[in-house]
Amino acid sequence: MSNPIFLGIIGVGGVGSAFISQLARLPNPPILVLLARSTQTLLAPAPEYSPPIPAADWKFAVESPSLTKTGPLSPEEISAYLASAPGRSILVDNTSDPTIAGSYPTFLRKGISVVTPNKKGFSSDLALWKNIFDAASQGNALVYHESTVGAGLPVLSTLRDLVATGDEVTRIEGVFSGTLSFLFNTFAPSSGSSSAKWSDVVSQAKELGYTEPDPRDDLNGMDVARKLTILARIAGVEVESPDSFPIESLIPAELAGLPSTSEGISQFMGRLPEFDGQMTAIKEGAEKQGKVVRYVGSIDVGKKEVRVGLQYFDSDSAIAGLKGSDNIISFYTKRYGSNPLIVQGAGAGGEVTAHGVTADLLKVVERL
Amino acid sequence: MSNPIFLGIIGVGGVGSAFISQLARLPNPPILVLLARSTQTLLAPAPEYSPPIPAADWKFAVESPSLTKTGPLSPEEISAYLASAPGRSILVDNTSDPTIAGSYPTFLRKGISVVTPNKKGFSSDLALWKNIFDAASQGNALVYHESTVGAGLPVLSTLRDLVATGDEVTRIEGVFSGTLSFLFNTFAPSSGSSSAKWSDVVSQAKELGYTEPDPRDDLNGMDVARKLTILARIAGVEVESPDSFPIESLIPAELAGLPSTSEGISQFMGRLPEFDGQMTAIKEGAEKQGKVVRYVGSIDVGKKEVRVGLQYFDSDSAIAGLKGSDNIISFYTKRYGSNPLIVQGAGAGGEVTAHGVTADLLKVVERL
Repeated sequence: MSNPIFLGIIGVGGVGSAFISQLARLPNPPILVLLARSTQTLLAPAPEYSPPIPAADWKFAVESPSLTKTGPLSPEEISAYLASAPGRSILVDNTSDPTIAGSYPTFLRKGISVVTPNKKGFSSDLALWKNIFDAASQGNALVYHESTVGAGLPVLSTLRDLVATGDEVTRIEGVFSGTLSFLFNTFAPSSGSSSAKWSDVVSQAKELGYTEPDPRDDLNGMDVARKLTILARIAGVEVESPDSFPIESLIPAELAGLPSTSEGISQFMGRLPEFDGQMTAIKEGAEKQGKVVRYVGSIDVGKKEVRVGLQYFDSDSAIAGLKGSDNIISFYTKRYGSNPLIVQGAGAGGEVTAHGVTADLLKVVERL
Repeated sequence: MSNPIFLGIIGVGGVGSAFISQLARLPNPPILVLLARSTQTLLAPAPEYSPPIPAADWKFAVESPSLTKTGPLSPEEISAYLASAPGRSILVDNTSDPTIAGSYPTFLRKGISVVTPNKKGFSSDLALWKNIFDAASQGNALVYHESTVGAGLPVLSTLRDLVATGDEVTRIEGVFSGTLSFLFNTFAPSSGSSSAKWSDVVSQAKELGYTEPDPRDDLNGMDVARKLTILARIAGVEVESPDSFPIESLIPAELAGLPSTSEGISQFMGRLPEFDGQMTAIKEGAEKQGKVVRYVGSIDVGKKEVRVGLQYFDSDSAIAGLKGSDNIISFYTKRYGSNPLIVQGAGAGGEVTAHGVTADLLKVVERL
């Protein structure tokens, strides 16, 4: 690297911590000048932007001398700080905050590139998506967000390559949620059989930490819908928002009204067994056809149709044979013909999500 | 693109033709100034390097007026021409010629980037590999060769990302030959059964054009060994040459002495049925264990061991379930844990190989 590149990071949760520790081991990392969590911000003192923040965990960084320490800064303040650095700069957003995502255009218009696993900017209103990429073009800045779908798996880069080189992507299909992958691989395994009740499998996943604190945030299908929205848009289908297509929720209609409080979670888990019969009937319906049920997302590019929900698959298909909490994504294209290009593996977890962020960061550094 | 980028292409065979037609449809292609086949070279006239060569098929290009036409040029002559162009330049080598591959360092030292599906430069002696990447670094030029393994599948880019971000790749395993994939998926399918004789399956594949004109070029395992050499080197295992590790050839020892003439091919195909019993015994040995036999390559990174040959796999494994002539590549890493990151799909064919070349070209253009 001939010119210095400056780096700001927001978020020090699971992904953020894993990312910082990957960053610390890079041979030629960009210069870390801003590190923010929800309650506090560390800055390399302007106007020299020196000394830099050590790329280590928050605890170590916060104790290093000579840094400027403030409370939370607004996106405008952060972008002003980074834009004044004596070189190109990059923002890594390791939060899932919609407010920060909503201000990506502000960063990009000032020439600050954005790398993030935060889905909110790319899966909300179509206007924000367009604003982000227009701003990047105007600011001559880059936006990389591989980890918004399938964590570190090469999903978006593969799709972008197919589109950029002129292949015709006809259909994208897959299992996009590690949580729902685990639930169905356990509830309805493709080989052998299971007599586990649906509610027990959900409880087990919750105890193992495989679900969100509120399992309804997985079961409502919105996380999958956001990922499909991103893929569809890259494939050229202008999805207006993640609720503008059919999403089959696994929250029984009778329980939809429960509050999103911790008491509401308890009530939901307590009443879920009442609906085990419905899920068993779906599972047995598949078995009668020699199939298994899975929760999938699919995009028919030609028809501009996006769907998220339950579907039956042959027991010897790749989707049926998925293990653990793996994701699988199949790209059907004109060049690849009847057998799709498939990417498979862990699609969630701090380390592999951070891997996607770090790989994106290296690509941005190469291009700046 | 602010600065013009100039492009030279060598090779107008299956991959070369598909590449040129993909190039012609790019919105902002680099300026084509050299197009060479084995017997003839077209050049945009120096010193203006204008008018450019139309990105179309050879037949159209050769008839366009105002181009300089010569016989074959040496790599030194081609690199001198490209290095004098008024901007950065890229060589795309769509041949499988070892002489051109051997001169990549000459191009790279002059600042000419190289994009190629030609395995020879990266899978021959380790000295050439090192010379190529040293030259790239000295010339501030780039080398992309995604299509040397798995054609357009994101195999090398995925491995390079894992390595660059500090993941520990422990094992790479897969089916790397479309031809051998087809032969074994047909001879020993994972579901149902086949009574086909090995020699009949080889004959059928030859007639369908799935094998090289001389099927022994597939059956000797050298193509797979070259791909494994490339992967191992990227993963940090310094393989000296593609014959410095065990390769199980599927050419019976008794037939190894037949000449590589068309008469030799006929004799080989004529005598192959004598060895059907051996292959049937291997297949049935696998079946007795509830498994299927496949021809795979594997790299144990820790032990620095590379192997190419037959191996038994569980019938419900991803490798056993492969369809048609698909490749599958599994990366086992520290971050991904017990379930590997898997890439699967067509790993041969003009269109998908050219797709990998075009995607590489776009990445080089972005970085120049």
